[in-house]
Amino acid sequence: MRIGVLTSGGDCPGLNAVIRSVVHRSVVDHGDEVIGFRDGWKGLLECDYLKLDLDAVSGILARGGTILGSSRVRPEHLRDGVERAREHLEQLGLDAVVPIGGEGTLKAARLLADHGLPIVGVPKTIDNDIAVTDVTFGFDTAVGVATEALDRLKTTAESHQRVLIVEVMGRHTGWIALHSGMAAGAHAVVVPERPFDIKELTARVGERFEQGKRFAIVVAAEGAKPRPGTMEFDEGGKDVYGHERFAGVARQLSVELERRLGKEARPVILGHVQRGGTPTAYDRVLATRFGWHAVEAVHRGEFGMMTALRGTDIVMVPLAQAVETLKTVPEDRYTEAECVL
Amino acid sequence: MRIGVLTSGGDCPGLNAVIRSVVHRSVVDHGDEVIGFRDGWKGLLECDYLKLDLDAVSGILARGGTILGSSRVRPEHLRDGVERAREHLEQLGLDAVVPIGGEGTLKAARLLADHGLPIVGVPKTIDNDIAVTDVTFGFDTAVGVATEALDRLKTTAESHQRVLIVEVMGRHTGWIALHSGMAAGAHAVVVPERPFDIKELTARVGERFEQGKRFAIVVAAEGAKPRPGTMEFDEGGKDVYGHERFAGVARQLSVELERRLGKEARPVILGHVQRGGTPTAYDRVLATRFGWHAVEAVHRGEFGMMTALRGTDIVMVPLAQAVETLKTVPEDRYTEAECVL
Amino acid sequence: MRIGVLTSGGDCPGLNAVIRSVVHRSVVDHGDEVIGFRDGWKGLLECDYLKLDLDAVSGILARGGTILGSSRVRPEHLRDGVERAREHLEQLGLDAVVPIGGEGTLKAARLLADHGLPIVGVPKTIDNDIAVTDVTFGFDTAVGVATEALDRLKTTAESHQRVLIVEVMGRHTGWIALHSGMAAGAHAVVVPERPFDIKELTARVGERFEQGKRFAIVVAAEGAKPRPGTMEFDEGGKDVYGHERFAGVARQLSVELERRLGKEARPVILGHVQRGGTPTAYDRVLATRFGWHAVEAVHRGEFGMMTALRGTDIVMVPLAQAVETLKTVPEDRYTEAECVL
Amino acid sequence: MRIGVLTSGGDCPGLNAVIRSVVHRSVVDHGDEVIGFRDGWKGLLECDYLKLDLDAVSGILARGGTILGSSRVRPEHLRDGVERAREHLEQLGLDAVVPIGGEGTLKAARLLADHGLPIVGVPKTIDNDIAVTDVTFGFDTAVGVATEALDRLKTTAESHQRVLIVEVMGRHTGWIALHSGMAAGAHAVVVPERPFDIKELTARVGERFEQGKRFAIVVAAEGAKPRPGTMEFDEGGKDVYGHERFAGVARQLSVELERRLGKEARPVILGHVQRGGTPTAYDRVLATRFGWHAVEAVHRGEFGMMTALRGTDIVMVPLAQAVETLKTVPEDRYTEAECVL
Repeated sequence: MRIGVLTSGGDCPGLNAVIRSVVHRSVVDHGDEVIGFRDGWKGLLECDYLKLDLDAVSGILARGGTILGSSRVRPEHLRDGVERAREHLEQLGLDAVVPIGGEGTLKAARLLADHGLPIVGVPKTIDNDIAVTDVTFGFDTAVGVATEALDRLKTTAESHQRVLIVEVMGRHTGWIALHSGMAAGAHAVVVPERPFDIKELTARVGERFEQGKRFAIVVAAEGAKPRPGTMEFDEGGKDVYGHERFAGVARQLSVELERRLGKEARPVILGHVQRGGTPTAYDRVLATRFGWHAVEAVHRGEFGMMTALRGTDIVMVPLAQAVETLKTVPEDRYTEAECVL
Repeated sequence: MRIGVLTSGGDCPGLNAVIRSVVHRSVVDHGDEVIGFRDGWKGLLECDYLKLDLDAVSGILARGGTILGSSRVRPEHLRDGVERAREHLEQLGLDAVVPIGGEGTLKAARLLADHGLPIVGVPKTIDNDIAVTDVTFGFDTAVGVATEALDRLKTTAESHQRVLIVEVMGRHTGWIALHSGMAAGAHAVVVPERPFDIKELTARVGERFEQGKRFAIVVAAEGAKPRPGTMEFDEGGKDVYGHERFAGVARQLSVELERRLGKEARPVILGHVQRGGTPTAYDRVLATRFGWHAVEAVHRGEFGMMTALRGTDIVMVPLAQAVETLKTVPEDRYTEAECVL
Repeated sequence: MRIGVLTSGGDCPGLNAVIRSVVHRSVVDHGDEVIGFRDGWKGLLECDYLKLDLDAVSGILARGGTILGSSRVRPEHLRDGVERAREHLEQLGLDAVVPIGGEGTLKAARLLADHGLPIVGVPKTIDNDIAVTDVTFGFDTAVGVATEALDRLKTTAESHQRVLIVEVMGRHTGWIALHSGMAAGAHAVVVPERPFDIKELTARVGERFEQGKRFAIVVAAEGAKPRPGTMEFDEGGKDVYGHERFAGVARQLSVELERRLGKEARPVILGHVQRGGTPTAYDRVLATRFGWHAVEAVHRGEFGMMTALRGTDIVMVPLAQAVETLKTVPEDRYTEAECVL
Repeated sequence: MRIGVLTSGGDCPGLNAVIRSVVHRSVVDHGDEVIGFRDGWKGLLECDYLKLDLDAVSGILARGGTILGSSRVRPEHLRDGVERAREHLEQLGLDAVVPIGGEGTLKAARLLADHGLPIVGVPKTIDNDIAVTDVTFGFDTAVGVATEALDRLKTTAESHQRVLIVEVMGRHTGWIALHSGMAAGAHAVVVPERPFDIKELTARVGERFEQGKRFAIVVAAEGAKPRPGTMEFDEGGKDVYGHERFAGVARQLSVELERRLGKEARPVILGHVQRGGTPTAYDRVLATRFGWHAVEAVHRGEFGMMTALRGTDIVMVPLAQAVETLKTVPEDRYTEAECVL
């Protein structure tokens, strides 16, 4: 068999582990050939690829990033490219394509599968917001990086009697905020799923100071927003010169909490550091298993599906299901984690 | 309500996180009182305890070890102590006891529950060998520590053209060996569930050298053993002076592989470092959830049960089920992870 | 003897290690008594202190922050408080005070010493900008944290073909930027000591892309500024509503480089994470040695001095010398590290 | 110019950073050509080498091991090979050779230099035992790894009331034991420079238990030995079957302390993990500076010298001086670090 693989969308620790696993399983066990498209869907559309043999994937298991490069492609661009993709597959003699990516990539994968192309997807997102899989690789690393930062910040906040508002990734869901906040013992967590009440947040933090505590750590998912009308809130965008304005929830909360509490409050924005670098052991194992099962699905001819973790098992689920809804944090997880507002 | 908590058995990252979680949930949300027995079951039998309020558990979430201490108690000792335990519970006005421990502890917990004592267990083992729960806290940290060590050892083995045999924990099961071996890209893994054939192992490693590779990493669970009759194997024990003899699978394999392959082979025994120190974010979240749900079970009067992870949910399962069998690595996990012999 | 100790100024990994070392050396070896003033000079001026015995410092060696708390005190405030400080020393029967702090603290220490108070200082700054000592503790940890972040960011930048501008601490000196930039192999570093030319920086980064590289990492010390007149530059401050404006060199450079290069450029601001959390082994050893030698100086009656590292030795130097000039990065270090503009 | 570089002796984090730095400085700034000999002196003697251009050293700065490979060569072998080395240098048109290695390598380097070959050495050892340089790269990483392990082990020892004897590297000197022991707050440290008295060690540990402490951490350099006649001590070697016997100071101390104290005592041997893997930022900066200055020395024609750190400066010192004596831990460092027996 001949299999093509590509990585698309934002960076995510574990991409290389999937690529390596696909190559190992295909080449060593099935005697397949594998090629990698460069820079995501772009490589497929432009027939830009490299051969992936064992040497090509040697030493990449623990490396962050993706040796194939990535890019974002506009959906309409891909829609127009279905036939081109089909031609390239034929031209290259490919029996299957394994795209590794997040929501956008999986939607694109579904589109191609719906047009009859032999696709087996592998879900990828540090945000953990893909439905039908318990977890996606990259999430554990992102939570680990955020938690380590929170551990460090806690001692500083304590010694210097401050409120620190730490912005973590999560534009649409609060998974990273929830898990890193629980892991580090944050005193309040705000998430996109639940617009927060600034008064409630202020009260929560203020209470700590009244109890004689000298600091507080607030974790804010980047997509967290105040309940409409409760707080002036700048959603960012460009300034009058067309420059980015660098607003952001942590910065605005720090100004607001400082004003309301009369305590020094400072924002910390963890940023891209959460999605780069060497994956945790957990993510490497999950990514490796996803790669293995994707190849098996290819060999069974199970197309239009993607790999998913259910309990301790890897199963195949229809791409159609995966992209229907975003997996937001369910209510009972908030109940458990009392730090969430 | 009044709840007693204790930690028993070997060290495991996340014990303090459970204790903290039990106290937080009980004290803050239910207005309960919590006490902690010192040094495991011993504390219960000897009525040795301390009060656990919020201050007592402040700052322990990320700390390794257990603020309550631990010890191993012989089963017959506990059997004889059931009535004493009951008296102490009455004397202290306890509505429930939450023991946190591994197989032995959960068996003891079951014994007490069978005698009508109000017990809610929390499973704990770095070995991940407790049935009925997908994972136990401590396992992720142990795998993480082992993987980090393997990452470091790989560069050394490569530069210096060596075979390194790395012994990881796992007396009865190969979970840590399997996961750390997969995560680090080990070239061979031997586990207790499958007695290995030394010739096959030698062949596997030898093949690498024939292909021009200059090194190999073998991961050996401490309980891995050769197939009977295939290799002289020293199961340890005391020497003639009554001193421990310090045999061990990695040391014996290094002698054997060096002899058979004519390549430098060296053992590395990771040891206790795998079960100490700060837990990973994953383990802190799991431990915190276990503590929360244990308190809820107490308040619902669900005794004789223990917390378990199933997929992404925490559920309660009968203690009786938990201790029936050891959770060994299933065959299909070996098939996936081709590194396992 | 009776010794008072205090920590003052911004957070710095290793403060607790010094406190512990002072207590160990004093109490165990000399039979002294030690007290700790709360929240820096404030504690001395307000006679707010706690007893520091061996139990009080147990387990703090590896902990970030300071168990004594810290605060900043305005110089004039302290100037007015010299007599009050003297009275409190007499009242408490103190033979010496050991202030641990940065430039401001050491200036204050010198002031008190000049007025005849028995002071032995210990220098502290993550910025490494104190003259007369080769290194200060905290610096190694800050560089380590920044380097780890840069390692992570590199893979992301590479996979996603971006310019990342990473802002590290260093308001007046470029030590952290230089060392972390060298350690992580940054492609350009800008520092306060050398106002940069935005055209030169653009050219440097642009060259990489011309050579076929797909990404670049720029490290910017927070105090780095463009040569006057070469680039619009917002030095921060408040906006018209009195809110902080959150300018910053990395954000402005990312806008500017994106505009000039036509490549995606993103800022990452590491922030407080560099000054919190557990110190590296290097910093713990240095901090411990500083504490030990400070106690010895007290016992020899060498007042008005502070500890300093010279080569591998700890020596005592006059406080007066220490605060004369800031230790900026010397020219030859720039020559060596070709990444610095 | 044409420069040859080689790495020799045991693994050491930072080797690749030196190689990269030599290539960067030579190729980018001087327009030189660089080749790397494979597997240390062997490569020079057998004329086995590869071209080192910028691509060859891309991405290796943070990687452990050495891309050139290493080996140990017997001194007499090299002595006989001087003329061969000279011929190969001429044949390859090399203007200088930069060997990076420890004591043995530097002795060999001196031998060649004494015979007129153009040699500039770079010292390398995790043991930090090379005279005339304040520190060698690799040492900081080794101490960091050992300290992290000690941090983890401490919580386990405490929770489980044990004595842990942790064996760290250092066959002839106690630098790693001293620094990691100080950094982690070990309760006793034994080093090769001072044969220990087992009674004194037992008393030191026993005292802790008498004071109500429940655990102790002893750090033992692998070369530490008891004072002759005070304790049966097995120096290792082969057993009657010719197998390695796996004695070792930590194992023997654990048997001995358990017997004498009646407390559980366990050995932990950290082993090769201390000399592998990614170097700390400190080591990367030092290694990079050494590489840079070695190239400069080559261009100045300063042969028979090696790079050394003195304070914050890199200087050149005669190879002859470097190998005269081993740098053992000086007495006053023991006085400071009261944990050393």
